[in-house]
Amino acid sequence: MGHNKLDKFEEKIGYTFINKFLLKQALTHSSYSNEKRMSKLDNNERLEFLGDAVLELTTSHFLFKKYSKLTEGELTKLRASIVCEPTLSQCSKDLELGNYLLLGKGEELSGGRNRSSVLSDALESIIGAIYLDGGLIKAEEFVRNFILTDIDNKKLFYDSKTVLQEIIQQSSQIPVKYYLIDENGPDHNKIFVVEVRFENKVLGTGRGRSKKLAEQEAAYNAIKELKNNQ
Amino acid sequence: MGHNKLDKFEEKIGYTFINKFLLKQALTHSSYSNEKRMSKLDNNERLEFLGDAVLELTTSHFLFKKYSKLTEGELTKLRASIVCEPTLSQCSKDLELGNYLLLGKGEELSGGRNRSSVLSDALESIIGAIYLDGGLIKAEEFVRNFILTDIDNKKLFYDSKTVLQEIIQQSSQIPVKYYLIDENGPDHNKIFVVEVRFENKVLGTGRGRSKKLAEQEAAYNAIKELKNNQ
Repeated sequence: MGHNKLDKFEEKIGYTFINKFLLKQALTHSSYSNEKRMSKLDNNERLEFLGDAVLELTTSHFLFKKYSKLTEGELTKLRASIVCEPTLSQCSKDLELGNYLLLGKGEELSGGRNRSSVLSDALESIIGAIYLDGGLIKAEEFVRNFILTDIDNKKLFYDSKTVLQEIIQQSSQIPVKYYLIDENGPDHNKIFVVEVRFENKVLGTGRGRSKKLAEQEAAYNAIKELKNNQ
Repeated sequence: MGHNKLDKFEEKIGYTFINKFLLKQALTHSSYSNEKRMSKLDNNERLEFLGDAVLELTTSHFLFKKYSKLTEGELTKLRASIVCEPTLSQCSKDLELGNYLLLGKGEELSGGRNRSSVLSDALESIIGAIYLDGGLIKAEEFVRNFILTDIDNKKLFYDSKTVLQEIIQQSSQIPVKYYLIDENGPDHNKIFVVEVRFENKVLGTGRGRSKKLAEQEAAYNAIKELKNNQ
């Protein structure tokens, strides 16, 4: 990767590495190190191991301070909505992280540059690299600027089913129900379609790679719809 | 809890709190706050949430530096052998942490002061409290002094089955086998007894609250026995 490209990425993330090798390593997917017959130890997996723990701590500390009235169980649930593949891959997409990854040819051809797991792992590797290069404070800054933004929306999205039920309960004891109405695509790449209904009226529809994700999206769309009609 | 007792505990852990309330909170089990009708937020569960993440990061960073040739998968396995209830409760016992806990009467009577989960959670709470009071460096010192000691032995204990198989493989392709030979006690408090055998010869016996723990202990005893006979 050219120096210009690394410079551009550093500008984007607002952090300049002392040790550029760490940045390059964080952007090196295992498919690339395999293809180039590099040592396994030079791809981004070890940095991901470390970065995952840095992200866990910075997120936990942030939530601990911000939500002083939440119990341990509520904090754990909230943290899980942030430190999860869908959120992290969305944050990676906001940073256009995919454009900077070093991938092997096979991974490239099969769409690795947009794969949630690849993007989410690489983001954790970047966090691990910043932590090693600049310490906890710098890693914390990065996490706050690019992951812990817009928490209320993230919370809403990943916990939409709970939020929807709370809205409905204000006026009724009847629970909403989720119905699987369609499954598309081949087995390894299925899309589920779910409707959420209240007293047989459809409140929202959602699609996702699992029933659970489709239900969350259906609930999220229902909340948006209910709010528009208020 | 008297000040003398808190002083004594601080001496033991080698850290003096600026904010003594944090220490007291870390030692307050939920059964005590329930009994005294204190707020849930004043027992040690929120500190445990934070301390768990501090422990995860300090352990990950320590292993990352110490084992520069291990892959992410190997590091993850090793970390799991340290950040786990059996190891943490053993560390708590070494610190006699149980003596300093504030417990409710029911928990006290049912043996909570020696319960692995209570001790392990309280140790994480102490780590969270030190982190809030003194920062990451102080928390790291505590973790190194009281948890990350004698790693090789801990590794051996929690991965004894693998180690035993490796020893046997030096001279044979036949795997060792584990046999459940007894189960004692009532359903909610069972003790399993397992033998590990090689070509029908008993190499070691182990006991534990799960088959897995009993197998690990059997393997551990077999390794000790084999080393004694060398």
